Amino acid sequence: MAAKNAFYAQSGGVTATINASACGVIQTARQHPESIGKVFAGRNGITGALREELIDTSLETDEDIAALMHTPGGAFGSCRYKLKNFSENRREYERLIEVFQAHDIGYFFYNGGGDSQDTAFKVSQMAEHMGYPITCIGVPKTVDNDLPFTDNCPGFGSVAKYVATSTLEASLDIRSMCDSSTKVFILEVMGRHAGWIAASSGMAGNGPGEPPHIIIFPEVPFERQTFLDRVDHCVKEYGYCVVVASEGAQYEDGRFIADAGGKDAFGHTQLGGVAPTLANMVRQSLGHKNHWAVADYLQRAARHIGSAMDVEQSYEVGKRAVEFALAGEQAIMPTIVREQNHPYKWHIGEAALSDVANQEKKMPIHYISDDGYGITQDCRDYMAPLITGESFPPFENGLPRVAHLSNQLVEKKLKTPFEV
Amino acid sequence: MAAKNAFYAQSGGVTATINASACGVIQTARQHPESIGKVFAGRNGITGALREELIDTSLETDEDIAALMHTPGGAFGSCRYKLKNFSENRREYERLIEVFQAHDIGYFFYNGGGDSQDTAFKVSQMAEHMGYPITCIGVPKTVDNDLPFTDNCPGFGSVAKYVATSTLEASLDIRSMCDSSTKVFILEVMGRHAGWIAASSGMAGNGPGEPPHIIIFPEVPFERQTFLDRVDHCVKEYGYCVVVASEGAQYEDGRFIADAGGKDAFGHTQLGGVAPTLANMVRQSLGHKNHWAVADYLQRAARHIGSAMDVEQSYEVGKRAVEFALAGEQAIMPTIVREQNHPYKWHIGEAALSDVANQEKKMPIHYISDDGYGITQDCRDYMAPLITGESFPPFENGLPRVAHLSNQLVEKKLKTPFEV
Repeated sequence: MAAKNAFYAQSGGVTATINASACGVIQTARQHPESIGKVFAGRNGITGALREELIDTSLETDEDIAALMHTPGGAFGSCRYKLKNFSENRREYERLIEVFQAHDIGYFFYNGGGDSQDTAFKVSQMAEHMGYPITCIGVPKTVDNDLPFTDNCPGFGSVAKYVATSTLEASLDIRSMCDSSTKVFILEVMGRHAGWIAASSGMAGNGPGEPPHIIIFPEVPFERQTFLDRVDHCVKEYGYCVVVASEGAQYEDGRFIADAGGKDAFGHTQLGGVAPTLANMVRQSLGHKNHWAVADYLQRAARHIGSAMDVEQSYEVGKRAVEFALAGEQAIMPTIVREQNHPYKWHIGEAALSDVANQEKKMPIHYISDDGYGITQDCRDYMAPLITGESFPPFENGLPRVAHLSNQLVEKKLKTPFEV
Repeated sequence: MAAKNAFYAQSGGVTATINASACGVIQTARQHPESIGKVFAGRNGITGALREELIDTSLETDEDIAALMHTPGGAFGSCRYKLKNFSENRREYERLIEVFQAHDIGYFFYNGGGDSQDTAFKVSQMAEHMGYPITCIGVPKTVDNDLPFTDNCPGFGSVAKYVATSTLEASLDIRSMCDSSTKVFILEVMGRHAGWIAASSGMAGNGPGEPPHIIIFPEVPFERQTFLDRVDHCVKEYGYCVVVASEGAQYEDGRFIADAGGKDAFGHTQLGGVAPTLANMVRQSLGHKNHWAVADYLQRAARHIGSAMDVEQSYEVGKRAVEFALAGEQAIMPTIVREQNHPYKWHIGEAALSDVANQEKKMPIHYISDDGYGITQDCRDYMAPLITGESFPPFENGLPRVAHLSNQLVEKKLKTPFEV
């Protein structure tokens, strides 16, 4: 069988290590020229395929591809774009096939979270319905750690390490100041429906009075008065109170603590402003001086404090995706399977895209302490190996050195442009 | 002359490297037992002296003191507390003398910014007026980099490195997403009256279209329409726009862009919320999807990405403060003197506390580009050496290892308590 080209694309919110997965895909493909010709990266995710904007990664040097290992963001551009069902939008699927045919693409690797695995699954269905042979493999990625079937998601370990470290550091700061100044510090972290990132802050301390004193999970309905009582208790007992709140924190009736208004391309409510909302609550009800921070993109881009385990696993899912494809697998996603905790052992497994798509894995209830404001030992045992090891990027002139790809587009072969 | 004990305290907002200065003071004092007995650290700054809450640092092991080098926050507690003038509050000065006499204290080292150097200066004046012999040396520290006479302030280089790195990383993130999602990212950084920290973000890129595209300095009056025009231009020209805004950004009439209300113990307006205010402006006027982050304490506590040069200079000002005291100097502060840029050379100089107190050094106008939204080559030449070199802390179980001092208080000798 002649070698076919491969299409690889990044989708959804990017992470500090999604490019490590790209590196895994491209380096592994380069080792199999008998089966895989060129790897074309979609410019801005699946929209790159629809628009026939294909980046020829074969023009990048081995050194530049290797630099993806320590470069945050999505090196080829990502997208928030969800393919409709085949029956609703046949036009897009036909276009994909035209582009794939025109560029002799026989492999489809899609690197993303739940919505993106749904896209990968739809492409595999299309392949079947429309009789176009293409091997579709999902590559997992999400800082939210909310994909099912995989023990953890590539990208999560690094954000967890950043959040735990930042919580530890900021807690030392506020502890220094609380006698005569700021008494309450509130850090808002990502996590729309699942509290994994907020939970990771719990690794900063372990013991009575150690920060963070309050973690607010989306999984636990927020009760204003018990929250305020607890803040006040901590200030009186320990002199200060450190709160880490998930952006998706909500009241029992489902109202988000802070709804910034607007929806993203997937129809999800766009959140923001939990920290200032809570800070205002504390100021007005308790009068304690407070500070707040919103980490936002800083957290998921913080490759400068990447988790070595996360970087390794991110690379591995990319590498194994290609190996699965070469082994003839179809419509699956490599998963991370935890074998044991002490010492931590893991291997790559697989899950069917049909099972993965559009599911969210919330925090198990036994990871959240009975009072709803902290993490349990089970949760600590889960988190510990994921934040282990430091993968610092190389630095140049005081700043992280990042990959500078040329990202040259392949010449278009189709006559008609396509609007997305 | 018999050895006298020393008093050391930390004051004002803490930094990622103030404990490195503490380490410099304590280690150097330990090398001079013939002149300096014990180093007592004020619990929570000068209030520790007033309350006779003195931490006996001689009970800490050499290893624990060495760990201060990589521990953010203020290990002995800091304070926001400004001594009134001698004529307005003689009671506090008399109390200080009682405490210093009771504990045989002959040296006073005060580690802080402008307000704190004012305190150190007042204590030295008191020594003269009241005939109590005590050697007073200031130790500079402030993330705001706004102390006069010193080329830069210990603590600034690390926050600058963090902000430049975070801006670079977040810019890669948003650049990946801008085609179909977030187009504007706004990062709020510290800097009440001086734009040094905001300026440091400019090191993230250098060239047409490279982020950050807009820096908002407190030194440049904010004009809503030119800001919005520039955001829109960047989105159209580069696909995205990265904005870094100083918390102290203000309109021409002196109104802060976001005034959170309330004042701190020094009477300064408590700021916050510039980023969400700007984000709202962009959303309402231009409609571009945006994200915003507020780094707050994360930036000044981020010892995990400390600047090696900053850590070295922070240690050195502590060390030299002790050496100045032993040489019989009075009412001075060690300064950092830049000799040249290529290669960077510096040495420790000194400034009189009477000159330093209560002055703020703003950004020189030739560090800000003509359009008011960027930094010049002069500014880059100034910043570059300050963010150079990485001083990573040791890690343990995935998190930075920090000093755990016992902070045991000396037994009180005075009969009367003192309320501050």
